[in-house]
Amino acid sequence: MAKEPKKLDELFHDTLKDIYYAEKKILSALPKMAKAAQNEDLRAAFEKHKTETEGQIDRLEQVFELIEEKPQGKKCAAIEGILEEGQEIIKEYKGSPALDAGLISAAQSVEHYEIARYGTLRTWAEELGLNKAKELLQQTLDQEEATDRALTELAEVNQEAQAEAA
Amino acid sequence: MAKEPKKLDELFHDTLKDIYYAEKKILSALPKMAKAAQNEDLRAAFEKHKTETEGQIDRLEQVFELIEEKPQGKKCAAIEGILEEGQEIIKEYKGSPALDAGLISAAQSVEHYEIARYGTLRTWAEELGLNKAKELLQQTLDQEEATDRALTELAEVNQEAQAEAA
Repeated sequence: MAKEPKKLDELFHDTLKDIYYAEKKILSALPKMAKAAQNEDLRAAFEKHKTETEGQIDRLEQVFELIEEKPQGKKCAAIEGILEEGQEIIKEYKGSPALDAGLISAAQSVEHYEIARYGTLRTWAEELGLNKAKELLQQTLDQEEATDRALTELAEVNQEAQAEAA
Repeated sequence: MAKEPKKLDELFHDTLKDIYYAEKKILSALPKMAKAAQNEDLRAAFEKHKTETEGQIDRLEQVFELIEEKPQGKKCAAIEGILEEGQEIIKEYKGSPALDAGLISAAQSVEHYEIARYGTLRTWAEELGLNKAKELLQQTLDQEEATDRALTELAEVNQEAQAEAA
């Protein structure tokens, strides 16, 4: 017998597992990024985002509960690849004046991955009539977008500092 | 003797190679996504983006020329992972009413990766005084942001169609 085709509720659940796995990976990558950062404000931004990520994981667990599923991750090749590039930057640009620029760039790739995922999940939650879940996902999406903007500002400050030092 | 630390011009060049590799991978993934799409407008959007991607690759080659480097790709683990997830969606959701929603989601992850990369490259081009390169990168960034918005609109239309069919 042919398998029943998977529907939007399953796509929602699959994607929730994907981002849950990704957030846990990000949580363990952030202290390494904070440690590598040369600029104090950038280090503080990574530390702040670590705390936010803990809250985001907590919200994801609430969403799992709302759909009556156990919080569970599913290996996400995308975040593995994105974080691997961040690790390469740390290795290749250690001691370089361009290290912080590279770290910000790596962090913005992570943010944009999350923005794409949470945007999708929020839209699907709406379609599925999961209003409380939609609200939780929107909160995280707003936070990720704010983090991305903060990183852009840090990139500009970093550039000005480089230009003055040059 | 210790290696000279890498500077912003090298980070710019490394990241250019990364996105050049990514764009070529995206170019070969788009026909598969177009073929898998159930909705005609979504298929047309993927086909349109294939043509845009060719133009983006051409602009990247112009940027390589501006910095007097040969156009060359560098394996990018992030895009490999992101595209792998798209392939999984095609496989797992074949024949499902949720397939198009999954394809749009996968495509938006790709767009956001590109938005992050081009945003960074554009900022660095400015810092490095590469004004012509900055202009070319900004053109592509605008195009990627427009594609992301178009995909969001298609997701909404797709949802309405699903809701009517239900």
